[in-house]
Amino acid sequence: MVTNKDNASKYFKENWQEEIKVLNEFLKIKTISSDSAYLDDIHRGANWLADYFNNLGAVDTKILETDKHPVVYSQINGSNRNAPTVLLYGHYDVQPPDPIELWQSQPFEPEIREGNLYARGASDMKGQIIIALTAIKSIQKTGDLPVNFKFFIEGEEEIGSPSIKSFLEKHKDLFKSDFVLNLDAGLIAKDKPTIVYGLRGLAYFEIFIEGPKQDLHSGLFGGVVRNPIQALCELLAGMKNANGVIQLPGFYDDVAPLSKEERSSLDKLGMDEDFYKMQTGARLLHGEAGFSPVERVGARPTLDINGIVSGYTGEGPKTVIPAKAMAKISMRLVPNQSPEKVKDQLVRYLSEKAPEDISWRVEELSKDPACITNLDFYAVRCFSEALESVWNIEPFYQRGGGSIPIVSYFKEILGLESVLSGFSLPEDNIHSPNEKLDLDMFKMGVETVIQFIYELAKHCGD
Amino acid sequence: MVTNKDNASKYFKENWQEEIKVLNEFLKIKTISSDSAYLDDIHRGANWLADYFNNLGAVDTKILETDKHPVVYSQINGSNRNAPTVLLYGHYDVQPPDPIELWQSQPFEPEIREGNLYARGASDMKGQIIIALTAIKSIQKTGDLPVNFKFFIEGEEEIGSPSIKSFLEKHKDLFKSDFVLNLDAGLIAKDKPTIVYGLRGLAYFEIFIEGPKQDLHSGLFGGVVRNPIQALCELLAGMKNANGVIQLPGFYDDVAPLSKEERSSLDKLGMDEDFYKMQTGARLLHGEAGFSPVERVGARPTLDINGIVSGYTGEGPKTVIPAKAMAKISMRLVPNQSPEKVKDQLVRYLSEKAPEDISWRVEELSKDPACITNLDFYAVRCFSEALESVWNIEPFYQRGGGSIPIVSYFKEILGLESVLSGFSLPEDNIHSPNEKLDLDMFKMGVETVIQFIYELAKHCGD
Repeated sequence: MVTNKDNASKYFKENWQEEIKVLNEFLKIKTISSDSAYLDDIHRGANWLADYFNNLGAVDTKILETDKHPVVYSQINGSNRNAPTVLLYGHYDVQPPDPIELWQSQPFEPEIREGNLYARGASDMKGQIIIALTAIKSIQKTGDLPVNFKFFIEGEEEIGSPSIKSFLEKHKDLFKSDFVLNLDAGLIAKDKPTIVYGLRGLAYFEIFIEGPKQDLHSGLFGGVVRNPIQALCELLAGMKNANGVIQLPGFYDDVAPLSKEERSSLDKLGMDEDFYKMQTGARLLHGEAGFSPVERVGARPTLDINGIVSGYTGEGPKTVIPAKAMAKISMRLVPNQSPEKVKDQLVRYLSEKAPEDISWRVEELSKDPACITNLDFYAVRCFSEALESVWNIEPFYQRGGGSIPIVSYFKEILGLESVLSGFSLPEDNIHSPNEKLDLDMFKMGVETVIQFIYELAKHCGD
Repeated sequence: MVTNKDNASKYFKENWQEEIKVLNEFLKIKTISSDSAYLDDIHRGANWLADYFNNLGAVDTKILETDKHPVVYSQINGSNRNAPTVLLYGHYDVQPPDPIELWQSQPFEPEIREGNLYARGASDMKGQIIIALTAIKSIQKTGDLPVNFKFFIEGEEEIGSPSIKSFLEKHKDLFKSDFVLNLDAGLIAKDKPTIVYGLRGLAYFEIFIEGPKQDLHSGLFGGVVRNPIQALCELLAGMKNANGVIQLPGFYDDVAPLSKEERSSLDKLGMDEDFYKMQTGARLLHGEAGFSPVERVGARPTLDINGIVSGYTGEGPKTVIPAKAMAKISMRLVPNQSPEKVKDQLVRYLSEKAPEDISWRVEELSKDPACITNLDFYAVRCFSEALESVWNIEPFYQRGGGSIPIVSYFKEILGLESVLSGFSLPEDNIHSPNEKLDLDMFKMGVETVIQFIYELAKHCGD
């Protein structure tokens, strides 16, 4: 029996090269969000998308201004208004291409070499957006679209989405939907289709230490005052014990424990000691005792010193006892940990441990909670089945170590879960010269999203 | 009975204002050693001194080239060739006058206001040189000079005397003498004539830590690698215990203990907790338990972190695990400690404590041993008696916390002890705008050196 899905798939197989041409048009627009010299290109990128949506039969397409770069909103109604509404998230902005001299072909002149499409944004993430839109188009060309779509495509992800939180708060109603599909995460390997179901949160602080009123000569005063660098080092050193366990009071109280099932599922990812040694170039790994590397990165909270500076750091000797010292530290948080509580724990630690002869203060720079998606959520199950049908193996479930603030914004502000996956590979050179999209991944990605849409259609009104 | 000393003293009292005019000529020459724009002035300064020595009846005056700025050598023979030969040390170079706008009068246009002579170099140390030379001149004008003098006046002290060590090694014989008189140390207060009899040494190092092969994203890799800043902080923190005791293995083994007499003599200096609080602006003092502040600064070894840098230190959050970290540390050493041994102790500490998953290396930047002069040395006793006869109180004996490399060079290379004193006051603003010389100190200084010369004359052939 030939299904609707087979027809869409057949259409795509016959027309995929046309869709690559469409993607190439998109890739030629230099939507570099960090450089105001490309502001016109940012707007051209947004307009290009709006035109695409209109050609796809969107009922409502808007280029919405934010405090930074515009968001493209659109909506496509399927044949069944009771079917789920997917909010497709994406970003049309890209990283700067520098250093340009390391590119083998021009970053904004897409070129196919050995089964890969090379261009800035090919993988991160214009290619991912076009994968989803091509799936929708393929279904529309051969039948009815059985679910509904809304689109949220921002233009400032690569600069940290500074205006998106307030933008979402302002446009809550417009983006009402059932869940978010976010293809900005990738696969862990070409043969390992992956769903990211958890992300760590981030609490980021600056710690300032002040000692003597001014820099002092270490000959004249070495031995009578506490050195602020020494005090800072002692405080930072004491934040972890020899087993890598964080010593802030109550830090682990709210940490959600890892279930047996989760540990075995994470174990299956194959991200073992050797994988992380190769990725980091570290001779030996180090971390919290009692947990595997992949658990430590994805499912356990961490504390890292991200920067430190004080005193004289130029050439040669200078015998100074500095008046001040500063460090930047951040904690990656796991579900149930609150960034506010972590700040309190840090302040309590410093109050208890800091010596009386210095003063200290803490500035907060980020406070994003972790987020996790229930693997039993129907949209996750549908995406998982779609991946399995295309790859012919059970997908891998990963908890990501980083933070994607947009995922927590959707959860916090709109109450929406995110299905987080995608078709970029670790070797795609995103953010680096010679960014590429593997054409196999493009094709399997479109097939997956077609399948996903038909899987979803079974869940009317869920 | 009118003594020779009285005659010299009388001559000086009648002519001191002429000698201030001579000093003013010297002060007008902009002998700034750090700025090559003043190279001509450096040479004019050296020539001015050579002329002065020739007018004083020197038998041999030379302007000797070094790898940096010239040294002025000269020799004046007294009436008794068996009497001691004093090597007068001095430097004719000065600090830059910046910030000039804070000066009340021009730095190179000497001006007397309220009993003080204001000019760059007035106190540090053109004034000190002229004090010694005026004493010699006053004796010559009224009788025979009863001791012999050699002179070593360098032009690069304010930039750390980079070429002086090799210069001294080359000219050992020329500077043969009985001891050094160095008036580059000052009084601790106007009513407290002071002899510095000990100086701390300096061992200065850079410590480099390397972890992962490149900077890593703390989200993707936080939890699997040791953070080099964390490792560095732990190593630095562990170098002292809670009582401020340095933990390098064997660090105190060679430290010369403080005698009861020395402790009570240091105590008399009156440099107490309040003195150091005022000087440093620290709310509370801190240092090695069991020793007073002045003992900790002058007679105990210390370890200070002078600088540290790693990772991201700019504005805002950046979630990086840096690949490298660096700190500068230095130890102030006391007599019997060897800088080479201290380096071995540091390397041993790091070998024992550094975790296996990072690499480290140490670079040595300075290695000056401490030096101490025996208070029973006849030249120290003579200077002490001279100070007492002018001030009418027993002098104070200080151990300086800093290092004066020239003092150890004279000891190491020429085998000469230094009598370290001088007539500059803590409030003379040396190295700062509005440097000045107190005219009372100028007068009492000349009287002291006249008296010193006659005291010395009693020690023929000692």
